[in-house]
Amino acid sequence: MKKTWGGAFDKSPDDLAWRFGQSIESDSVLWREELDVSIAHARMLGATGIVPEADVIVSELEKIRAEIEIGSLKLPQDAEDIHGAIEAILFERIGEIAGKLHTGRSRNDQIATVTRLWLRRRCADLRRATRRLQSVLLELAERHQRDPMPGYTHMQRAQPITLGFHLLAHFWMLQRDVVRLDFVEKACEECPLGSAALAGTPFPIDREMTANELGFALPSPNALDATSDRDFIGDALHACAMIMQHLSRLCQEITMWTGAEYGFMRLDDSFSTGSSIMPQKRNPDFAELIRGRSGRVFGHWVAFQSMMKALPLGYNRDQQEDKPPLFDSVRLCVDSLALCAGMMETATFDVLRMKETACEDFSTATAVADALAATGMPFRKAHELTGKLVRECEKRGWTLMDLDESRLSEIGLEIPVSILEVVDVEGSIRSRDLPGGPGPEAMQRQLQKAKQLLRE
Amino acid sequence: MKKTWGGAFDKSPDDLAWRFGQSIESDSVLWREELDVSIAHARMLGATGIVPEADVIVSELEKIRAEIEIGSLKLPQDAEDIHGAIEAILFERIGEIAGKLHTGRSRNDQIATVTRLWLRRRCADLRRATRRLQSVLLELAERHQRDPMPGYTHMQRAQPITLGFHLLAHFWMLQRDVVRLDFVEKACEECPLGSAALAGTPFPIDREMTANELGFALPSPNALDATSDRDFIGDALHACAMIMQHLSRLCQEITMWTGAEYGFMRLDDSFSTGSSIMPQKRNPDFAELIRGRSGRVFGHWVAFQSMMKALPLGYNRDQQEDKPPLFDSVRLCVDSLALCAGMMETATFDVLRMKETACEDFSTATAVADALAATGMPFRKAHELTGKLVRECEKRGWTLMDLDESRLSEIGLEIPVSILEVVDVEGSIRSRDLPGGPGPEAMQRQLQKAKQLLRE
Amino acid sequence: MKKTWGGAFDKSPDDLAWRFGQSIESDSVLWREELDVSIAHARMLGATGIVPEADVIVSELEKIRAEIEIGSLKLPQDAEDIHGAIEAILFERIGEIAGKLHTGRSRNDQIATVTRLWLRRRCADLRRATRRLQSVLLELAERHQRDPMPGYTHMQRAQPITLGFHLLAHFWMLQRDVVRLDFVEKACEECPLGSAALAGTPFPIDREMTANELGFALPSPNALDATSDRDFIGDALHACAMIMQHLSRLCQEITMWTGAEYGFMRLDDSFSTGSSIMPQKRNPDFAELIRGRSGRVFGHWVAFQSMMKALPLGYNRDQQEDKPPLFDSVRLCVDSLALCAGMMETATFDVLRMKETACEDFSTATAVADALAATGMPFRKAHELTGKLVRECEKRGWTLMDLDESRLSEIGLEIPVSILEVVDVEGSIRSRDLPGGPGPEAMQRQLQKAKQLLRE
Amino acid sequence: MKKTWGGAFDKSPDDLAWRFGQSIESDSVLWREELDVSIAHARMLGATGIVPEADVIVSELEKIRAEIEIGSLKLPQDAEDIHGAIEAILFERIGEIAGKLHTGRSRNDQIATVTRLWLRRRCADLRRATRRLQSVLLELAERHQRDPMPGYTHMQRAQPITLGFHLLAHFWMLQRDVVRLDFVEKACEECPLGSAALAGTPFPIDREMTANELGFALPSPNALDATSDRDFIGDALHACAMIMQHLSRLCQEITMWTGAEYGFMRLDDSFSTGSSIMPQKRNPDFAELIRGRSGRVFGHWVAFQSMMKALPLGYNRDQQEDKPPLFDSVRLCVDSLALCAGMMETATFDVLRMKETACEDFSTATAVADALAATGMPFRKAHELTGKLVRECEKRGWTLMDLDESRLSEIGLEIPVSILEVVDVEGSIRSRDLPGGPGPEAMQRQLQKAKQLLRE
Repeated sequence: MKKTWGGAFDKSPDDLAWRFGQSIESDSVLWREELDVSIAHARMLGATGIVPEADVIVSELEKIRAEIEIGSLKLPQDAEDIHGAIEAILFERIGEIAGKLHTGRSRNDQIATVTRLWLRRRCADLRRATRRLQSVLLELAERHQRDPMPGYTHMQRAQPITLGFHLLAHFWMLQRDVVRLDFVEKACEECPLGSAALAGTPFPIDREMTANELGFALPSPNALDATSDRDFIGDALHACAMIMQHLSRLCQEITMWTGAEYGFMRLDDSFSTGSSIMPQKRNPDFAELIRGRSGRVFGHWVAFQSMMKALPLGYNRDQQEDKPPLFDSVRLCVDSLALCAGMMETATFDVLRMKETACEDFSTATAVADALAATGMPFRKAHELTGKLVRECEKRGWTLMDLDESRLSEIGLEIPVSILEVVDVEGSIRSRDLPGGPGPEAMQRQLQKAKQLLRE
Repeated sequence: MKKTWGGAFDKSPDDLAWRFGQSIESDSVLWREELDVSIAHARMLGATGIVPEADVIVSELEKIRAEIEIGSLKLPQDAEDIHGAIEAILFERIGEIAGKLHTGRSRNDQIATVTRLWLRRRCADLRRATRRLQSVLLELAERHQRDPMPGYTHMQRAQPITLGFHLLAHFWMLQRDVVRLDFVEKACEECPLGSAALAGTPFPIDREMTANELGFALPSPNALDATSDRDFIGDALHACAMIMQHLSRLCQEITMWTGAEYGFMRLDDSFSTGSSIMPQKRNPDFAELIRGRSGRVFGHWVAFQSMMKALPLGYNRDQQEDKPPLFDSVRLCVDSLALCAGMMETATFDVLRMKETACEDFSTATAVADALAATGMPFRKAHELTGKLVRECEKRGWTLMDLDESRLSEIGLEIPVSILEVVDVEGSIRSRDLPGGPGPEAMQRQLQKAKQLLRE
Repeated sequence: MKKTWGGAFDKSPDDLAWRFGQSIESDSVLWREELDVSIAHARMLGATGIVPEADVIVSELEKIRAEIEIGSLKLPQDAEDIHGAIEAILFERIGEIAGKLHTGRSRNDQIATVTRLWLRRRCADLRRATRRLQSVLLELAERHQRDPMPGYTHMQRAQPITLGFHLLAHFWMLQRDVVRLDFVEKACEECPLGSAALAGTPFPIDREMTANELGFALPSPNALDATSDRDFIGDALHACAMIMQHLSRLCQEITMWTGAEYGFMRLDDSFSTGSSIMPQKRNPDFAELIRGRSGRVFGHWVAFQSMMKALPLGYNRDQQEDKPPLFDSVRLCVDSLALCAGMMETATFDVLRMKETACEDFSTATAVADALAATGMPFRKAHELTGKLVRECEKRGWTLMDLDESRLSEIGLEIPVSILEVVDVEGSIRSRDLPGGPGPEAMQRQLQKAKQLLRE
Repeated sequence: MKKTWGGAFDKSPDDLAWRFGQSIESDSVLWREELDVSIAHARMLGATGIVPEADVIVSELEKIRAEIEIGSLKLPQDAEDIHGAIEAILFERIGEIAGKLHTGRSRNDQIATVTRLWLRRRCADLRRATRRLQSVLLELAERHQRDPMPGYTHMQRAQPITLGFHLLAHFWMLQRDVVRLDFVEKACEECPLGSAALAGTPFPIDREMTANELGFALPSPNALDATSDRDFIGDALHACAMIMQHLSRLCQEITMWTGAEYGFMRLDDSFSTGSSIMPQKRNPDFAELIRGRSGRVFGHWVAFQSMMKALPLGYNRDQQEDKPPLFDSVRLCVDSLALCAGMMETATFDVLRMKETACEDFSTATAVADALAATGMPFRKAHELTGKLVRECEKRGWTLMDLDESRLSEIGLEIPVSILEVVDVEGSIRSRDLPGGPGPEAMQRQLQKAKQLLRE
């Protein structure tokens, strides 16, 4: 494969070095954006009269784009990178004129533009996948808005909530991801094209024109910064890491809830796997894989920051390493979101078991403490007294629901009988009906708000 | 120190365990926000009639806040955490009534609210420090807008630019940091207070009231999410990491430029250190420390993501680990921004040396290639031809500036003499005058745009 | 505080810069090693005749060491670093002669030596703490060597094992940590003292003598490398990260097992905490904190690698950032190991519940498949057939233990009745008695091997 | 493709889920080890009489191995993983009997064994590549053992050393990498085969036999640990990260030294690249790529630790994520080591320029301070006085080498004329001739020691 920069050199590169520097395998995913940017650039070279033969270039590039699209043209896998691959095809077809495409630009501004364009489009994909999971969760939440389950803190049962309320918590996590994706998209709004290697170009190019054609908001203000800057990739990796962190939490719950100890949930066969040696196993492998792969995106962010750290301006070849982590993170997020949507949508929940679990133990103790406090007792004291009550019950093998007047007096802590009204799980949930709470009206409002966001 | 949760327990905690769980040392920085949130909560408890004695609590908390402010009151360092510390003082002063402050809230929503409030305020500090460094860079850029220097790619001289142009590239990096800080601040706009442990509270609290008083935009929509969510910390750590990455690049340049090999820059004595054994050394220690400490913030982000990964909802004690990295990252950023401003403001630049350096070697070769292309030669060919020219010059020990008509013909590559007009450094810079370029008019526009942003 | 390097400077450092560069707060922990190294160096300066007054220095340094030890002398907290602090004290006491201590060395080789010495000693602490947790686990494993519990894969019950067998798995993880600590200690065996700033010294110092006195194996072979090298810190951080990763797995199990869903384990009051609002809660906070803090050490490793990345030789000030992560990681590991030992030692296990759990579901299905295979059926087919059997049982609400001849024939899969002998949990465990298995003899051998390692 | 675990399931997996779970693409590199382990296992099944038809299996597996080796057989890319791929081929060829290969083992112990075997072999590759770079450095060091260059600290010229001395510093860094690789290899010495899924097997397998045949030191002691443990991967990733960190430092120097500002070094054409737009550029792209990719391995370590964090025992599917980072890190290290060897071996050093640079400025100031101290002046005072001398020289535009008696007395600091003997660069180097120093005899000893290590 011909290099685009061999002029001043006596020897060709070492074989290993050549392969080490090749990025065609990973950056092939950029083919469409590479062509879109080149077409916009060529069109501008024509419109400004810089390259009279621009029409020939434009129409050939459009043909190439169409052929790759339908699969009749393959990218040469021995090229150095995606630029070289497209250029090689163009040279083969239109000869020397192809060389004029490079007028007034460099690989440095080209790749910076292409990557931003690619990422802007992927933000749309990511948003779509997030929205889909949100809508699955929302539908489930609506269905289960009154099904009690234990609410946990410290992975210990704390206070009764509903399954719908729990699922909506995941909805809101994803909502923040959507907002973060908007931010990433906005971080790609400036168009570096025309910055050339680092200092712009003397050719009278029209940067507004290319920026507009490619849907950017405006040309970037400083050519050196534009070719050195990879902030948008850092932001994208962070956004992906947050998505994966959120999904890892959901998947941890799937893994726990499908276990026999919890027994809250059963995954559909299509989202479970078996064991090669233990026939009874139904393993939540895909939840585990998503959980495990969240770390991969954390690693990508680290790789990116370590790579950028202490690089002087402008472009350094190290920056080629920005793309593999980006490509992998985006694809992993899109797939993981889709898998979570599939797992949740097809799962069944054992609502009876969840309710029974919520009734066990002492999960309404807070309600007791609150009821004591409502009688005017300082909360700290109410808390301490309820603690003693719990200990006494435990000693006797009772739950709070087993209490009655005589048992209360047997325990003898001078606790008013009025608390007997609040030890019931469903009553406890019903009483927490302020905005943000699991009570029925509060849930209605929360569901409405969530639906409205999805409609937007 | 009294624990707030000992009621159900026979034994007190193990000594090491107690110390291991203590966070008072690090979360002391939250004292003001802890008090602001408690005052807002107490005021609301009064206004809603939930706690008739709320006035007593409010006025005592205000006194405590004033006393800590002027330094007459110290936080007890044997407390478990900042909540326990303040509560202990309050108990000592107003007795049992203090216990009523905890009505309708929990440590889970309290810490979530306090940390968000603290971070919102720190975003303002960070923005101020960033703006200050930007304005130092802008002033220097204006002063040096016409001073030539070599522009680098691959840490090799590439094309001539100006010092002002280079410094503005750093300005724009910081501009993106300011936008990112706005995002972080917005990520803290929901108020978790009233979410209690995970499921809200049956007390008829007024969440709008506390949210408003504390300057939040609205109450958070889901109590379970509100107490589990630490996204805003992840976003803040990412924003800090990006700031430090940017500063690490500036500091790398300071370290290189102050070395004798470059000799572009001299730091003021007040921002240099010496060697205990080599008296002639002037070490850019603070630039090195900032560069080295950038990695610390990367580590904090990793610690945070690893900690959050796969945590089931709601609050888990692991999440206490969110704050030390946050506090350290914010302080490090504020200090590093201030130090960079100080270093740059007091530094002197050897503009003569920079200009001479820009004239050495072959940094105007691109201008030659562009000039050849402008004659209608395909760019790739112009590039190859210029490469050959450079090799011929190198063999003879000439730079491009040493060329004249006879030397051109001696080399014999059929290169038109017109290119002799573009081998001059200042001419080359002047010709790159499109938006984003280093040319004089483009720089004027860029400076104007930058100034306007700072004025906003 | 006097700087040790101010000679060539007109101005003193900027205030913020000074504080930014101070490391006395964190490196105070090095005081003993700082003194030990200085004493060894001074003694050598005397023995070689380089500094005739060395005796005065040595005896004063010994006094200082003794005084700090008993607490009668405090380090000046306004010093730049630990070197400056000790030197200031020395100057105050013996005047100008103190300056001779610095003959033939620099802060670069001094800190490299001091840190290695400190780490060698901490390896002993870490090993001791690891051994203690191992011995707690071993004792528990011996006690519970025949108590059945479900063995899990994918967090789903897989095959029955014993509690003792499970606990020994953690023992072996820690055993690898001990081997790793040995490696770290060996990584500190070369003594950099005498390397001076980067190029050794012309003074006729005796490097063998100081290396021997300080217990190093030999002097380091290259002064530039010796002062640039921080490999031993990277190795220590990795070893600490592995310890914390291992403990995070144990602590995850503690958190799950103490939850009501598993109900396998109860932590002692002294290692549990309560909730300020939910009186019945017994939270495994210390297990959660250890789990959460494991991420902190991962972050420290990242901070270290990012800091070292791409630093040219020799010493750069960035490297000052090597110590805070090291100090924090070591302390965190020692404390976490001790806490785990405390938690496990005082915990109680509900062995009845564990056994019952092991009997539920289909955890002996593998035994059935193995039994079928033993009749000559290809394993894959045996596996498939057992899968069908499980599904048929599930449909009918039976476990494998509920099977008898008539039920087998009702299901009608032509499964031989011989498999009825292997559906029993204890039988299944007993049959897995090869080396490494949970069977009784294999466990005896494993316990013996473990005991022997601890005795060494 | 047939799954090996479908027996109990009604539906086949979701398409995306299936692809998400596939690992055949990355784990194809394990084909040889997969076959070696299966062959050893089958041979043992025959020898122990467990599977009478074992011979058929063994000889078919050997055929498959030979065919893949010569390229006549390709792995089916639609398999789930490498186990499935080989098993599918075997089934196709010998039918049902193939199923017996799985007797007494599981994918959990199989993959644990295969990966360890693979890594042990790769340790040999890594050691070889490291040794090769060491021997290139050693040869260069010998050639340049007397060529002066400036020694740097803080990236500022500090004291004169030699190029050979500097290169040997890198030799010793790599030496520690070799020791670390030995450790990693030893971390793979236990053979998990026979641990089955987590609890061993009731079949009377011979674990010693398989362990021996595969070259392991012994069978692993606990089946649950053996299938959960991934420590050896963590250790390998750490070792790779350290290698890359070391190479990033060498490559940073290559990048700086090949720049015109330093001008110390020129890379061969075969290890440089040009610019598509700046014909004169000779970019050290491969040094930059290695520097940038070091971050990738840091990221892999983070991905690994995050993935393992808080996983309960035994095998979880998350652990499938251990291999892609391992494979990528090992390959990157082997390639980077080879490239560095290539770059260094073919590079040319401008020793004249290096020497001149060493003579500039005040790099012998330490020698002056040492000489003053040798007269009995306390070192701190000698240091301060030399600092003043340097400042006076700077004011007058002199270097230390420009000093003579009259100039000394003009400066008037009462500095003895004896110091004039030590301001010479080569003299300064010669005087630092203690072990570890750059002086001629010390270098000879250092070279000898290095050579001996390579011979071992």
